[in-house]
Amino acid sequence: MTAKKLKTAIVPTREENYSEWYLKVIQSAELAESSPVRGSMIIRPYGYAIWENIQSQLNQRFKRTGHKNAYFPLLIPLDFFEKEAEHVDGFAKECAVVTHHRLEVNDDGKLVPGGELEEPYVIRPTSETIIGHQFSKWIQSHRDLPLLINQWANIMRWEMRTRLFLRTSEILWQEGHTAHATADEAEAKTLQMAKIYADFAQDVLAVPVILGEKTPEERFPGALHSLCIEALMQDNKALQAGTSHYLGQNFARTFNIDYTNENGERQLCYTTSWGVSTRLIGALIMSHSDDNGLIVPPRIAPTHVVIQPILRKSATEEDNQKIIKHCEELCAKLLQIDYHGISLWAEVDKREISGGQKSWDNIKKGYPIRLEIGPRDIEQNNVTAVFRTKITEKQSILQSDFLNNVTQYLDSIQQQIWQTASERLKNNLFKIDDINMFEKFFDNQADNNQFEKAPGLAEIFVDESADYSEYCEKFKISARCIYLNNNDNHDNNTIGKCIFTGKETTRKVVFGKAY
Amino acid sequence: MTAKKLKTAIVPTREENYSEWYLKVIQSAELAESSPVRGSMIIRPYGYAIWENIQSQLNQRFKRTGHKNAYFPLLIPLDFFEKEAEHVDGFAKECAVVTHHRLEVNDDGKLVPGGELEEPYVIRPTSETIIGHQFSKWIQSHRDLPLLINQWANIMRWEMRTRLFLRTSEILWQEGHTAHATADEAEAKTLQMAKIYADFAQDVLAVPVILGEKTPEERFPGALHSLCIEALMQDNKALQAGTSHYLGQNFARTFNIDYTNENGERQLCYTTSWGVSTRLIGALIMSHSDDNGLIVPPRIAPTHVVIQPILRKSATEEDNQKIIKHCEELCAKLLQIDYHGISLWAEVDKREISGGQKSWDNIKKGYPIRLEIGPRDIEQNNVTAVFRTKITEKQSILQSDFLNNVTQYLDSIQQQIWQTASERLKNNLFKIDDINMFEKFFDNQADNNQFEKAPGLAEIFVDESADYSEYCEKFKISARCIYLNNNDNHDNNTIGKCIFTGKETTRKVVFGKAY
Repeated sequence: MTAKKLKTAIVPTREENYSEWYLKVIQSAELAESSPVRGSMIIRPYGYAIWENIQSQLNQRFKRTGHKNAYFPLLIPLDFFEKEAEHVDGFAKECAVVTHHRLEVNDDGKLVPGGELEEPYVIRPTSETIIGHQFSKWIQSHRDLPLLINQWANIMRWEMRTRLFLRTSEILWQEGHTAHATADEAEAKTLQMAKIYADFAQDVLAVPVILGEKTPEERFPGALHSLCIEALMQDNKALQAGTSHYLGQNFARTFNIDYTNENGERQLCYTTSWGVSTRLIGALIMSHSDDNGLIVPPRIAPTHVVIQPILRKSATEEDNQKIIKHCEELCAKLLQIDYHGISLWAEVDKREISGGQKSWDNIKKGYPIRLEIGPRDIEQNNVTAVFRTKITEKQSILQSDFLNNVTQYLDSIQQQIWQTASERLKNNLFKIDDINMFEKFFDNQADNNQFEKAPGLAEIFVDESADYSEYCEKFKISARCIYLNNNDNHDNNTIGKCIFTGKETTRKVVFGKAY
Repeated sequence: MTAKKLKTAIVPTREENYSEWYLKVIQSAELAESSPVRGSMIIRPYGYAIWENIQSQLNQRFKRTGHKNAYFPLLIPLDFFEKEAEHVDGFAKECAVVTHHRLEVNDDGKLVPGGELEEPYVIRPTSETIIGHQFSKWIQSHRDLPLLINQWANIMRWEMRTRLFLRTSEILWQEGHTAHATADEAEAKTLQMAKIYADFAQDVLAVPVILGEKTPEERFPGALHSLCIEALMQDNKALQAGTSHYLGQNFARTFNIDYTNENGERQLCYTTSWGVSTRLIGALIMSHSDDNGLIVPPRIAPTHVVIQPILRKSATEEDNQKIIKHCEELCAKLLQIDYHGISLWAEVDKREISGGQKSWDNIKKGYPIRLEIGPRDIEQNNVTAVFRTKITEKQSILQSDFLNNVTQYLDSIQQQIWQTASERLKNNLFKIDDINMFEKFFDNQADNNQFEKAPGLAEIFVDESADYSEYCEKFKISARCIYLNNNDNHDNNTIGKCIFTGKETTRKVVFGKAY
């Protein structure tokens, strides 16, 4: 409030009210909106196009690593659910339950449920049980292994406090399920998929993540261990963006997933499951957007270039049509260009609204490159280009140069988005080696800024025997993940003292406030 | 039973037991199977790959005609449903109803529904209501029209008698929803989408269809008219394979879908909806498969060519490895070939099973071309090719010729599958102009063959005032569709006498037994 305040396209700004800013970014970009159904959102075409790109990129990676897509039922019989004790404990509190199979009109003329089911069904919150049941039929011999299946589906978890993309009752996601002959192979698969998620998040979404393992209290219900990727949002809260679970023989035992080995002996399988959801779009929005709205990294953008014909009311209809035609020809040329294996996508924005409104609309949509083409540009064979990462800078570029270099421009925009996000993670991840510092770090109650910015992430040594639950409760924080030993991004093999117990350990855990 | 009986891969044959044959074809090709959830099927990877191809082909056609994908909630509030009277009448009897939002353990230690909802929800049987509600928010001005949206989703209709792909409780489908300023434009959209379905069914799935309009009693609940594509299965029963509905202002009125026109006046929109589902896979199976299993038309096939290395136990490991390597090189070359805009897909079948079993497995999967490659083929630079449409004929083809001509082979297989299916439709569609003939045609009760083959389709003149309900009841038939006036495949403008009323009319209706 001290210096001159610049006008921003999104009101409020991140500083003023982060949660409200997030909703406004989504609304201005027309990504999604809340629905009349409690906790379920409507994904609008632009948001869904991002989701389709996520699907197509992940499908490539899943298929390349041998997985095949299939589809399993939406409903899960209650008795399936009951079989795995930890699993049912984990999900029972938030299940949508189907109890009737028709509607009837009651005496007051009101529509009410009719035809009560003998056994109710649960809408899948995840599908380990029903897929496990089926795996037991499909797997007979060691020749049937490994079995590598993925499903794209909607799931339902009855959430009380919901937020678009980050926490909704109905979720679109993928869930991979695999069965293996050995524990080693299943653990390797768990890690492989977590790495695919990490690479995809970083290379395509430009979202830097920490690949780690969940602490026991944060594990998936029924898993022996859960790997995860954790991202840091602009309010310094952590977001779990994907998980990969090693289920050991827990589900195999419950659902009799076994096989005959080469010696003719029956053996239990080892299974894994792993998933990411539309939450990735939330991570994307909260990682890159600014006070002027959404910023979409080119590698995931449904539209790479938007072309705005600059028309004048004073010009003749013929002259304006000439400009539109020129823009459409340019657009057609752009559509021919290959960008990382897919067609570059460009659009001409022909809406009959003012140039200013049009520009701001397109900025808020986060298109990587915005072109303005007016009579003078055409005369001089130029385009006027504005990159979303630097909206105050208009560049005049020879059209032929623009066409030759557009994929490099996009790559440099991608690189810059990545740079900004990864520096932010680096700058907000603190190594803390003393319990007082730790308390001080998270005790920012006095700081009552509207931004509600969390202090960031703390990386500390934690012995396995440590009990830190009182700190988690006091500061409303959680252990986000344990660094993997062989995490490339990390100085391994260092030894330090657990800040809770004083014992020496190599086990490093990241703590933070989380979504 | 008279002549020498040939051994077939599918037992029973179509003649012996058509329904059982259908299930066996699906099972042998590993397309789908029933699940522990009443009426819901599991779509196995090969079946799901066909569905993904259907999705991708239709997405292209939808996007080319201006539609965008979006996603709406799975659950629909009861009061939405109640608003459109005909609509609720049409779907109330077969709805899955969600009444609780958690599970609890009761006094007997049994898991039971808990947390009763104040207002129950219905799992969408279709989404006109919730999408209509949202359209009313998105549409303000004539500039927002037309609004052209499509959704890929799962829906649920509680069916009592289910059959894989043809009738299941949970269905994967797409539903298009559009809103327009004028009735003409909405009617044109209804026809455009029905034609897209017809073209797709015929050109890609090789399933001949009759494009027509539903009679009033068969209309979608809430529609002013419903267009449909009807296909004829090998048991001579008709299958509705896709529908496109003109909803007039019915849903617009109920959900206040209106806009301000150029004169500043509020006007109600005209809306349409249209959909196809995994039922298309049922149509595909029942149209083309034979007593040796599935036949997949190349244009929709997930795998075009399967390569079987002919290995001998008597040969050295080195010699066998050489054959496998040769097959893999050939496979890699095939993968480079473009087939109607997508990569041709080939696979080497390296399973360690007998050659005979391998061949029959691959025949039952319906791969268009099967190659056998043994030492002699390699010596002579040949491949031994067998087309699925003629499995008794092995052709020795120079490998270079095969590579050069493979897309033509595939096209000719596609053509032959189409030819067979369209002749079957032609041969089983009868023009009937007399009520006695009509009765005789459908009265085949005496004929108690296992095949339960229906008599086929009858094309008759029917005046709009005619009441033919007693015939429908008596023969268990229905009016499948009214020919469109401008149906290209049909001799228009002919006039005949209604076989029920004797009145002159140009209105021709197709009757038949239906799925």
